[in-house]
Amino acid sequence: MASLKVPASVPDPCEDAEQLKKAFKGWGTNEELIIQILAHRNAAQRKLIRDSYAAAYGEDLLKDLDSELTSDFQRIVLLWTLSPAERDAYLANEATKRLTASNWVIMEIACTRSSDELFKARQAYHTRYKKSFEEDVAYHTTGDFRKLLVPLITAFRYEGEEVNMTLARKEANILHEKVSGKAYNDEELIRIISTRSKTQLNATFNHYNDQHGHEIIKDLEADDDDEYLKLLRAAIECLKTPEKYFEKVLRVAIKGLGTDEWDLTRVVATRAEVDMERIKEEYNKRNSVTLDRAITGDTSGDYERMLLALIGHGDA
Amino acid sequence: MASLKVPASVPDPCEDAEQLKKAFKGWGTNEELIIQILAHRNAAQRKLIRDSYAAAYGEDLLKDLDSELTSDFQRIVLLWTLSPAERDAYLANEATKRLTASNWVIMEIACTRSSDELFKARQAYHTRYKKSFEEDVAYHTTGDFRKLLVPLITAFRYEGEEVNMTLARKEANILHEKVSGKAYNDEELIRIISTRSKTQLNATFNHYNDQHGHEIIKDLEADDDDEYLKLLRAAIECLKTPEKYFEKVLRVAIKGLGTDEWDLTRVVATRAEVDMERIKEEYNKRNSVTLDRAITGDTSGDYERMLLALIGHGDA
Repeated sequence: MASLKVPASVPDPCEDAEQLKKAFKGWGTNEELIIQILAHRNAAQRKLIRDSYAAAYGEDLLKDLDSELTSDFQRIVLLWTLSPAERDAYLANEATKRLTASNWVIMEIACTRSSDELFKARQAYHTRYKKSFEEDVAYHTTGDFRKLLVPLITAFRYEGEEVNMTLARKEANILHEKVSGKAYNDEELIRIISTRSKTQLNATFNHYNDQHGHEIIKDLEADDDDEYLKLLRAAIECLKTPEKYFEKVLRVAIKGLGTDEWDLTRVVATRAEVDMERIKEEYNKRNSVTLDRAITGDTSGDYERMLLALIGHGDA
Repeated sequence: MASLKVPASVPDPCEDAEQLKKAFKGWGTNEELIIQILAHRNAAQRKLIRDSYAAAYGEDLLKDLDSELTSDFQRIVLLWTLSPAERDAYLANEATKRLTASNWVIMEIACTRSSDELFKARQAYHTRYKKSFEEDVAYHTTGDFRKLLVPLITAFRYEGEEVNMTLARKEANILHEKVSGKAYNDEELIRIISTRSKTQLNATFNHYNDQHGHEIIKDLEADDDDEYLKLLRAAIECLKTPEKYFEKVLRVAIKGLGTDEWDLTRVVATRAEVDMERIKEEYNKRNSVTLDRAITGDTSGDYERMLLALIGHGDA
């Protein structure tokens, strides 16, 4: 369930565009107004605002936001304002670039989006970068990482509820055999993880648990040096229980010395309109503190206000 | 260029549906009428006829065609009447089944369709078979064949005209190094073939030729035992010059003892609305006989008439 709060009566997009233009004018920027508008509009509404802004002022709202805002606040407003597909393409592209490379972000986009969302991100990648997502991922990764990531991002998984129980049993045994033998980069294991529907995989993982007495996730506990194994484990978590995966990313981002704003921003911007309520529940359960409070404790200013608005704190 | 001939004035789809219904009635079926209608309607028009037929008679035109017709004529009429995406999904599914398994058909669909066409075939596969194309291919293939085919069918290649010449030079050298070393299943080679845009690959292959004095296709001449190498070579031919690949499939299907109706039917049904005119040119150039004449010499009856109509022989 989404955490985004949209007011009962939404202003006309032209009016929103006009207000945003005003927020940029004069001495300093009115960040409060920007949050009040953008953090309370859904993807379709934000798209209309961008269109109205372009029509009224001949300028790209994103470019103006980029030049008016700074730092973490700028990043979250920009990411949020993009359409989900454009945002995924942007994050995916960043994740294939040397200085911002991240196998985790690539895996996260591949495994937590619906089949249609992932495909739309691949279309948006074509449009924006004049090449394909998979050619960048395949080019910039090597070895086991490439072997796992390319099939994950190119998958178009079936999304019906059908389960083949015979297959689930058979493939649970294959997975168990490979995991027991520490054959984590095995072709059969990657085939199963990267092609089966999430519903089918769920049955397979359940059977694994029933038959062998452990969850597959537990059997994949990695020592800290094995980056590939950690990524594989996270991929399975994303396919199985994305809210738990995201809870952990938030927990690690907020805990410890300093905050990882990069991760915090990404998770909030990409999940606010999807399943942030479930993630908040998980967070509360696991940390005995609400995500709202954790964010308040670790961030400040407009960035904090934008995060809180997106996770549904306060009214629209 | 398509070979399909559509009459200047196309009857209303309801009228076509009525005529088809009539063709099925009474003593025997009027095959001539079926050809006259279906072989001269494009995909959108055939769709409307199917819709009108279902609305008027509460029956599926494809089921009636299936029960009224037989043998090779039945197969070509059914394949042709399907929409291109449904047809590809049907052929793809057949190619993953034990008795009709064909790595060639899978490769052909992956490499000769546009990115959108291939994606639509994957969508149609979901709808019809309640699973994904790639999960069937990955499940039913092994080793090098799987390693090549899965990335080919899951690709969503960029289709713009942009070429990166530096990359083309670099990747031509990688390809040459792998091919010279007979490392035909090498990951880098498969990465390049399966992810780059066709325009980019064309520049890469040209550079290969310029730099090393042979076409890559020539350097991949296989002895008859190496099925994988033959498939790889054909994949490159499909990506580079599909009309030459299809000319060869037709030539082999028609030549020799007996005709391979399965291949002949597939190529005519899938290319009549796409590039059959180019394939006919290639065929004529390579065999010093027109495809029309070759088909007349090797087939007969309604099957022959349907093939000839689809390749544009005679008037609409």
